[in-house]
Amino acid sequence: MNIPLVLDAEPVSYIIGNDALEKSANKFNKYKRIIVITDENVEKFCLHVFKQKLPLINIDGVITIKSGEEHKTINQLTYIWNELTRLNADRDDLIVNLGGGVVTDIGGMAAATFKRGLVFINYPTTLLGMVDAAIGGKTGIDFEGFKNQVGLFVAPKCVIIDPVFLHTLEDVQWQSGFAEVLKYGLIMDKELWQKLEGIKYNEVVDWNMVIIKAARDKIDIVRCDILEKGIRKNLNFGHTVGHSLESFYLKSANPVTHGMAIAAGMICESWLSSKIFNIECTKLNTIVDMIDKNFNRFDFTTDDIPGIMQLMRQDKKVRENKHNFSLLRKLGKAVHEIEVDDKLIIQSLEFYVNRKSCD
Amino acid sequence: MNIPLVLDAEPVSYIIGNDALEKSANKFNKYKRIIVITDENVEKFCLHVFKQKLPLINIDGVITIKSGEEHKTINQLTYIWNELTRLNADRDDLIVNLGGGVVTDIGGMAAATFKRGLVFINYPTTLLGMVDAAIGGKTGIDFEGFKNQVGLFVAPKCVIIDPVFLHTLEDVQWQSGFAEVLKYGLIMDKELWQKLEGIKYNEVVDWNMVIIKAARDKIDIVRCDILEKGIRKNLNFGHTVGHSLESFYLKSANPVTHGMAIAAGMICESWLSSKIFNIECTKLNTIVDMIDKNFNRFDFTTDDIPGIMQLMRQDKKVRENKHNFSLLRKLGKAVHEIEVDDKLIIQSLEFYVNRKSCD
Repeated sequence: MNIPLVLDAEPVSYIIGNDALEKSANKFNKYKRIIVITDENVEKFCLHVFKQKLPLINIDGVITIKSGEEHKTINQLTYIWNELTRLNADRDDLIVNLGGGVVTDIGGMAAATFKRGLVFINYPTTLLGMVDAAIGGKTGIDFEGFKNQVGLFVAPKCVIIDPVFLHTLEDVQWQSGFAEVLKYGLIMDKELWQKLEGIKYNEVVDWNMVIIKAARDKIDIVRCDILEKGIRKNLNFGHTVGHSLESFYLKSANPVTHGMAIAAGMICESWLSSKIFNIECTKLNTIVDMIDKNFNRFDFTTDDIPGIMQLMRQDKKVRENKHNFSLLRKLGKAVHEIEVDDKLIIQSLEFYVNRKSCD
Repeated sequence: MNIPLVLDAEPVSYIIGNDALEKSANKFNKYKRIIVITDENVEKFCLHVFKQKLPLINIDGVITIKSGEEHKTINQLTYIWNELTRLNADRDDLIVNLGGGVVTDIGGMAAATFKRGLVFINYPTTLLGMVDAAIGGKTGIDFEGFKNQVGLFVAPKCVIIDPVFLHTLEDVQWQSGFAEVLKYGLIMDKELWQKLEGIKYNEVVDWNMVIIKAARDKIDIVRCDILEKGIRKNLNFGHTVGHSLESFYLKSANPVTHGMAIAAGMICESWLSSKIFNIECTKLNTIVDMIDKNFNRFDFTTDDIPGIMQLMRQDKKVRENKHNFSLLRKLGKAVHEIEVDDKLIIQSLEFYVNRKSCD
């Protein structure tokens, strides 16, 4: 594991919930100039909100990258470095990353590496960004077909999480974020799960509460284990199977979203949890029903399972050909580094394909 | 200033002096595979020494970049990322940067950003690398014509400094490193200065002593102030004038080396020091004579001074058009953030051009 320098770093500060934007006004005080990094969609739908809620902040430059995960590339990173050079940005300036996970990932990396590091603040504008991507210091780009192959851990100065931007989202963006929200419920926040149980994401009334709880769950974990040596691995629940499904569908006509893949992964891995930790059938059925209520099932068949297993073996986290899962010991409590053998994983995929209930 | 994450980082360990290579054998123990990053020259002249002194270390891959500062580019960085991808390098592996400043700068950045950070060890092979570039956590590349425009502060796991490689150096590489050695004498190490006074670099007998003292001087400074907020700025002595001379000659037929530029910068800035801190003429003459003994003077004339001043104004460190110098309060003791006005700087360049003695 990498050892970033121990420095006189201040802890990250967070402002979460309604009116977080307005409350963040004093974060800009000490800086000479403010440069915003955003993407085309966010510029269109969110930048005016940012300006309106922070009327006294002078924006000295806006760097706009292309929208979408497929643009989390070295080219876009180089584009940002070029723009920062053109704007003559320096260490007296502040970078504002305004956008979803792609913007905070790539903008964070660009800021952290320009002139060996400019200070940056994350303003996530998507549900996934608010409860996950903008928190925890992971930055980076995809490279040569590998997700997040290049990047670094680096702390933003602040993360400002305001639900005001949520109304700009499309269905698929809601879903992507909601899969992670459900995950926090399952792995560590039974209260959050109970508040959401039986509800479809578009029926949620109190997003402010959901975001505050989910974001705090993530913050609690990364504060203990920023480098993912221990408890942060719990966040991988649903992701081992989920990532291999994401890869499996990558080349299909309609590539699936991260949220859909994680939702499917959580069904399989909840089943694995039930087998390994004797979770009772009614509990497992509740979990599966809740996920099914929010996410359509994938259409792969038992014939596809060997191919999916093959992709799983290429996962970064596989060591010595052993699959280490983060699983549920019970609803609301995850554990990591549970070794599971292939046979059981295959059965979990069959459970998914056959849409069986546990009984 | 950037705020890298505060992590559970161990301090950097150093092995310096004769047989450092052999003594470093136990640093490789916990890693699955060893990947060496080097350049074409170093591969030819030094890699066999590394292998011979560390016969039990299995090298699983060698990534060779092009030699020379002009190759400290995004293309070479991307090449390393590609090779690491091809070798399927991961966080169980160890990167060995074997080379001069270009290799440790670019290799350090590549390692620190691949899969969000692989551990790396620096084995500097040049004098400049041993006493300066490999120590202190600065990594990076040149970008769009700006030196070190992109990079990050990141700690190597160890720095192994063994004079065994020095015999491979060419004259200009000796000089580049020797300028920095003299700088440590002037800014913080009177004893080192006294040991070298009156000697030409190719007459030095005890390189082991020189390297141990100079490397320790740098380590002492960066341990106190890795992010260059205070005392590390003392290392910029000679560099304000030096960098503008480097830029001035950049487009000439024979671009000058960093060492030559810093040597000239130290003459000008010693003169400034003598004016501001009343250093007596005999001391100043001693300093100038020692530098002249080791470095030829540049051939610019008083007509070129306005152009050099113009380049000085573009320096990254200029804030609000004020030139902040690191100067000598006396021989062996530097101070930073001394504001000097243009008139005096011009006079210091005239002092250099006219080859006057102080009297």
